[in-house]
Amino acid sequence: MVMRKIKITLEYRGTHFRGWQRQREGQTVQGELERALTTLTREKIEVSGAGRTDAGVHAYDQVASFDTTSDLDVARIRRSLNALLSPDIVVKNVVDIDQKFDPRRDALWREYHYYILNRDYPTVFFKDLVLHESRILDVSAMSQAVAHLIGRHDFAAFCTESPGVLTTVRTMLEADVSTAPNIVWGGESLEGLVTVRLRAHAFLYNMVRIIVGTLLEVGIGRIPPERVKEILLSKDRNQSGRTLPPHGLTLVRVAY
Amino acid sequence: MVMRKIKITLEYRGTHFRGWQRQREGQTVQGELERALTTLTREKIEVSGAGRTDAGVHAYDQVASFDTTSDLDVARIRRSLNALLSPDIVVKNVVDIDQKFDPRRDALWREYHYYILNRDYPTVFFKDLVLHESRILDVSAMSQAVAHLIGRHDFAAFCTESPGVLTTVRTMLEADVSTAPNIVWGGESLEGLVTVRLRAHAFLYNMVRIIVGTLLEVGIGRIPPERVKEILLSKDRNQSGRTLPPHGLTLVRVAY
Repeated sequence: MVMRKIKITLEYRGTHFRGWQRQREGQTVQGELERALTTLTREKIEVSGAGRTDAGVHAYDQVASFDTTSDLDVARIRRSLNALLSPDIVVKNVVDIDQKFDPRRDALWREYHYYILNRDYPTVFFKDLVLHESRILDVSAMSQAVAHLIGRHDFAAFCTESPGVLTTVRTMLEADVSTAPNIVWGGESLEGLVTVRLRAHAFLYNMVRIIVGTLLEVGIGRIPPERVKEILLSKDRNQSGRTLPPHGLTLVRVAY
Repeated sequence: MVMRKIKITLEYRGTHFRGWQRQREGQTVQGELERALTTLTREKIEVSGAGRTDAGVHAYDQVASFDTTSDLDVARIRRSLNALLSPDIVVKNVVDIDQKFDPRRDALWREYHYYILNRDYPTVFFKDLVLHESRILDVSAMSQAVAHLIGRHDFAAFCTESPGVLTTVRTMLEADVSTAPNIVWGGESLEGLVTVRLRAHAFLYNMVRIIVGTLLEVGIGRIPPERVKEILLSKDRNQSGRTLPPHGLTLVRVAY
């Protein structure tokens, strides 16, 4: 019995999950994966993920790993998992990987997109995946504002306190606000789509949703772009905007 | 009381509808629109559509019109309709138009896309909008096959008989099979997407779904591309492929 480590890449629609992390009650992505893998391998499997997404948050390319002594080939594992899992989780890729691989510690960065549908009417195909905002947003002001967050900073103003977090210093590698065609359907890009794209080594609890909530205040002209720099320096959660709902948020990439 | 004619453009997710056309029982798109418009205008409204989509078929840009004596402005009509309608229908555009406008007769062409997800694993975000097919498709053979359908032909082999249809001759203006990035999510085009794109002045009952069912046989190598020409000439429905399920089909454009 040789122990293997398997790396999986998966996408999920967060709408009906209580987030990534296994819980005593309620459906979670980690819980579903462990249940399916235990059925498949007849071993008690524990899955480690690259990052814990909150209830309602989606993932396009989440990464996870697990140990098993099963000798099933990777194509068979993928096929069987997709047959066993809820249709809201799809395993896209399964590979054998070095025993030392740790999806959380080894990740170079994570990239999140927060999608805002900025137009007068909603969308049918993407209603559970974008935040609908009818007030006209100043995307250029939002771009200026988000640039203040690039670099190594104490993001205490942009997170919800969470037990066990030793430091609120994080490094934002890239951050922009754009009307890039990140969602296309029927060959046409979704009209009015505004994407807030944030790439960091790691994120704090609710960090993206609070940052975007603050950028939204800039977008509607309630605060000027430079105010975001002051909020950052204040390290005070009471200065920043509201935590936006989870359904506009997608983990799009974890890089190694 | 001046009679106005209003043209609306709408998108809908066909999954939970019994198609476009009003029926005595069951939810239909036309029925929902008429109900909402009657509530809004307090008149008995009848809606004409550019084309009747079947149960389960989606529309990205369906066109319809109705007469009303209401003096509500078009922005107000759109906003109110979207508030009254099911979230599976969104009215994208509302304009006043000439009394002589007829959405069905005046249409120059309709374009449909049939989406096939040709890969080993399914999709989370688009599962109700694409047909999943794991067998590897020969897209080049399918392209050759579909080219035989361009032009003015009797499409009797590619439709389900339907009462009241005087002729099965139709003109296919454009037809191709491609791996074009017609669906993008998270900035990445959906891997393995094959699109069958058909543009015609008008279509027969089940025509797209039977054509694509036949192209699928070509794609998996069961019949050669030239066989599609023979099937066309046979005018025999028994020669063509199966009627594919509706959920892969979207009406993407009606042109005037």
